[in-house]
Amino acid sequence: MTDMWVNETLYPFWGQRFGVTRELARAKSAFQDIAIFESEFHGRVMLLDGIVQITERDEFVYQEMLAHVPLLAHGDAKSVLIIGAGDGGVLRRVLMHPGVTKAVMVEIDGEVIRLSKEFLPNIGGDTWTDPRADVIVGDGIDYVRKAPDASFDVIIVDSTDPIGVGEVLFTDDFYSNCARILTGRGLIVNQCGVPFMQADELRETSARRRKFFPHVTAYVAAVPTYVGGYMTLGWAGKDPSLTTLPVATIAERAQAAGIAGTTEYWSPQVHVAAFWLPPYIARHLPG
Amino acid sequence: MTDMWVNETLYPFWGQRFGVTRELARAKSAFQDIAIFESEFHGRVMLLDGIVQITERDEFVYQEMLAHVPLLAHGDAKSVLIIGAGDGGVLRRVLMHPGVTKAVMVEIDGEVIRLSKEFLPNIGGDTWTDPRADVIVGDGIDYVRKAPDASFDVIIVDSTDPIGVGEVLFTDDFYSNCARILTGRGLIVNQCGVPFMQADELRETSARRRKFFPHVTAYVAAVPTYVGGYMTLGWAGKDPSLTTLPVATIAERAQAAGIAGTTEYWSPQVHVAAFWLPPYIARHLPG
Repeated sequence: MTDMWVNETLYPFWGQRFGVTRELARAKSAFQDIAIFESEFHGRVMLLDGIVQITERDEFVYQEMLAHVPLLAHGDAKSVLIIGAGDGGVLRRVLMHPGVTKAVMVEIDGEVIRLSKEFLPNIGGDTWTDPRADVIVGDGIDYVRKAPDASFDVIIVDSTDPIGVGEVLFTDDFYSNCARILTGRGLIVNQCGVPFMQADELRETSARRRKFFPHVTAYVAAVPTYVGGYMTLGWAGKDPSLTTLPVATIAERAQAAGIAGTTEYWSPQVHVAAFWLPPYIARHLPG
Repeated sequence: MTDMWVNETLYPFWGQRFGVTRELARAKSAFQDIAIFESEFHGRVMLLDGIVQITERDEFVYQEMLAHVPLLAHGDAKSVLIIGAGDGGVLRRVLMHPGVTKAVMVEIDGEVIRLSKEFLPNIGGDTWTDPRADVIVGDGIDYVRKAPDASFDVIIVDSTDPIGVGEVLFTDDFYSNCARILTGRGLIVNQCGVPFMQADELRETSARRRKFFPHVTAYVAAVPTYVGGYMTLGWAGKDPSLTTLPVATIAERAQAAGIAGTTEYWSPQVHVAAFWLPPYIARHLPG
């Protein structure tokens, strides 16, 4: 049995703990407490303000679903905006798509990027030096306010929950600007928590997205360390047909993009089925 | 923050803890330690030998998938054998199907049944007095050895992991008898653990089932308190077409059986998609 445990402090009534062998980094940035541990099973684990953000062992689930689903559903995304995701894992998956000519990543906390590069090099890999990547340390809400109309095909928001530093990424101001800066078939995806534990998060933020987008839904991913059954990824867009494409279409696009065969969680079938929500989740979406 | 925590002790390297308000029951049966707590979020929680078996709040996920998927995939199951499942939740879901004329439940530990009836009455409901139910306190391996050939259409094994008291339910002896006592289109499903944490369990028990059944696969369910992403439910049968039926067929059967609209996790789409395994799970199945 492990001697040294790190307890997550996300919920007052339930918790998970990781057996760890050593602490790799601990910092207090201008925005949050950052900690990275070497764990016994999950590889390296990063916590922000005591909440698990990523582990080396299960990051593939979340990152593949957050990046490949919107890009392959869109089918012709050239310009992608990523908000948050300071570990670089989403950026790396986005840049696997050869059709993407520009990926702007806006992360508010430079310390998260710095520590991820140093202690989680496997997650971002060499994505940081890809010439198509533009990594900005800055405020996502500010960035979308100033970005030109119709300048992105896909926006991916990999934020913390809507408390603390991530809260502004769930506001009317943020979503209205996202709608404005997206192209005609553009769409935004964002993490919406685990509805078994935090159903309000999906319900309230979906209703807010519905004010600015004609098509609002969600899709699911079973992420081992975001505990509580499925986590939901919110989807808001202009073209409802993008979330009901057949498996064959998604499979063809993945083949053409070189994504087929590279994934551990995502598959064309998993992609299509992720939009088929269990009733206990579907009821939290706007009618 | 909660004062009183109950820690699950399933893994040496990771754990979950529940904030609890009181202990309802604690017993040492001939087979295992049984504990039932009132928790702050998950309703009542039952642990066997320190491992979470069921909570009132999320039992619907596991029970619906363990009962409705095999019965609706079979389409004409009359006789069902349930091994384990002493809380009564699987039996209750099985008996929701009007075509089932006989459901035999064999649970080795009478104390689990007794304590479930007393402290978890919402889970079994009034299923215990259904005239189609035959509840036997006894040994599942012994029961299948003595049961006549071709006497069950579906076998559902709701056991603990293949350690301790549940171990015999993953043996050659058990599976060979299950194959013998199943009817022509018969099938067996059983819980196979969470492959992210325990991939050996799915791989080894699937290979063993493959010795006695022409068609072996698995399907997934995202159970909140069986932590680690998807849990897998093993499937072994004689007719491979049962796991690839279209959504419309499953939906029609659910409508006819009166299951449609009663579920919180299961749906015709969720049913069909549960067999579409992510690559990290699919690779553990026999080729």
